[in-house]
Amino acid sequence: MSSFKTIEWKDNKVIMIDQTKLPNEEVYLKCQTYEDVADAIKRMVIRGAPAIGVAAAMGIALGAIKIETSDRAKFLGEVNKITDVILATRPTAVNLFWAGKRMLRVLDERESNINQIKTRLVQEANNILEEDIEICRNIGRIGAELIKDNSVVLTHCNAGALATAGYGTALGVVRCAYEAGKNIKVIATETRPFLQGARLTAWELHKDGIPVSLITDSMVGHIMSKGMVDAVVLGADRIARNGDFANKIGTYSISVLAKSHGIPFYVAAPISTIDYDCPEGSSIPIEERDTAEVTHILGNRIAPDVNVYNPAFDITPSENISSIITEKAVVREPFIKGLSELIK
Amino acid sequence: MSSFKTIEWKDNKVIMIDQTKLPNEEVYLKCQTYEDVADAIKRMVIRGAPAIGVAAAMGIALGAIKIETSDRAKFLGEVNKITDVILATRPTAVNLFWAGKRMLRVLDERESNINQIKTRLVQEANNILEEDIEICRNIGRIGAELIKDNSVVLTHCNAGALATAGYGTALGVVRCAYEAGKNIKVIATETRPFLQGARLTAWELHKDGIPVSLITDSMVGHIMSKGMVDAVVLGADRIARNGDFANKIGTYSISVLAKSHGIPFYVAAPISTIDYDCPEGSSIPIEERDTAEVTHILGNRIAPDVNVYNPAFDITPSENISSIITEKAVVREPFIKGLSELIK
Repeated sequence: MSSFKTIEWKDNKVIMIDQTKLPNEEVYLKCQTYEDVADAIKRMVIRGAPAIGVAAAMGIALGAIKIETSDRAKFLGEVNKITDVILATRPTAVNLFWAGKRMLRVLDERESNINQIKTRLVQEANNILEEDIEICRNIGRIGAELIKDNSVVLTHCNAGALATAGYGTALGVVRCAYEAGKNIKVIATETRPFLQGARLTAWELHKDGIPVSLITDSMVGHIMSKGMVDAVVLGADRIARNGDFANKIGTYSISVLAKSHGIPFYVAAPISTIDYDCPEGSSIPIEERDTAEVTHILGNRIAPDVNVYNPAFDITPSENISSIITEKAVVREPFIKGLSELIK
Repeated sequence: MSSFKTIEWKDNKVIMIDQTKLPNEEVYLKCQTYEDVADAIKRMVIRGAPAIGVAAAMGIALGAIKIETSDRAKFLGEVNKITDVILATRPTAVNLFWAGKRMLRVLDERESNINQIKTRLVQEANNILEEDIEICRNIGRIGAELIKDNSVVLTHCNAGALATAGYGTALGVVRCAYEAGKNIKVIATETRPFLQGARLTAWELHKDGIPVSLITDSMVGHIMSKGMVDAVVLGADRIARNGDFANKIGTYSISVLAKSHGIPFYVAAPISTIDYDCPEGSSIPIEERDTAEVTHILGNRIAPDVNVYNPAFDITPSENISSIITEKAVVREPFIKGLSELIK
């Protein structure tokens, strides 16, 4: 397990490690209201598809327990409104919507007493958290078999304990291989503009004693051409039915480079990341974020006031993927078949 | 022409725009000694292969005029020592060594009077500067013919007026196409770790009114997949006899991505960048720079204290190049033949 808690429910508050402050400060944000949680998701205090799912569920529960009414219909209406606010925070990661749906299903349960529903919502949010850790452990166990001893694994962004309720997806695979005694080294791309690789992945692995080297995103081709990378393992924010997937901007470039160097390219993600309603990558909405993320770093201006593109994600076509590692099985070509079998 | 001076000789001083301070401050560094110039090259106050060549020549001239001796042999020995110091500043860009050799050839001229040699050294350094501007204009004129009207040109790092005595190589091509009335837009990669794209290319083009959009290095594949790039044009720090070339880290990745998307990939560089003694890319020394360039940005820490790779350049094999644009001609496959014909 990782040596810190990404998010937890405590004394009717949602506590999360503030990922905008890492690696320089390890501070925890206490969310008192669902608006605090929505703001934290938007500002990327918490990020990573599975962690956003947990945060969304906890945000909905937090909003629900503060509703002061004895009118059941009014209460349900308020919970729906809160859910809408939470789901409007970020568009790409499907786990947000998955968690929202799962919380709303609690409202359809037979409890009619408002207090009972409140208790069930809090319970369900905590279930999602506990299940996420268990899912990550299974992804880790299944994925670790693909990682040979004495391997260097390149990862992008942070699909670690910080991106989940704990343990991580891509870094869960690394962690499990490492815990099994394999000699594993990680190369982390810094992942501009938000620097999740430099700030979060390097911090998380370093803290847990797993060897990690940091590079800029521009170095990926060079180190691959030098034979320094044995496998790429990274996460996903949404996987379409056909295996195309959205992940942090830069993932697509890495997939092209991995293919051109004959390096296996693995995607590690829970089944909740698969959007079976989405036929292919081009249907996934891509979030455009504030241009200041590109023109400024830690509040300091690094560029003049010019036009900027800042898509937060890109789409990698399934033909660039070696396998998708889920908590149930490793899925290979043809992905449309393998992914559909996961929910049979 | 660009609206600022990258480097000039004035009142027996070498004045250069401090590129570490851009874009936030436009300040000029006055180098009083050759050690000041060597330090400026090392710290990348001035950078870019052709500009380094000019700075090296001016540094040698500056050192030479301050030597106080009437002993010719002693004087020549001192000039050689100064040249050694200047040439030890950076290993990859061959223009540095080319300029050094050219300055030392002045010592073989028939002037025996020390003052005459001093005058000739200053004159030769200024000749190198003037010629560089002329060379860039010719590269621009020849290269602009390859750039279609209504094109979006992607460039990496800064091969602009700031990387040369003026006008630029890759940006000389852009500038010339733009001045000829073509509708040209530039996409500049920010170019981590030193951010030459964000800090210098965006600043230089914006200042001169040429439309420029800024992206992070990780976005290149994504925007190419969206059909947003018509051509890649960038510079070179050293070109081997067979056409392989060293350029800013990230260039190789871009070449692989351009090839996989069928986008023309042009290298713009003066003939002085071609190292005819170097058979292929693997023989080019690659500078490793301070890891703090990766772990810190503008003095602020962005990563924990982990292992870091920081190669300043990478090698792109000639098979990824569409053409090399020089001041004499556009060179295409087979490069070994085309490059050798340039000096016949």
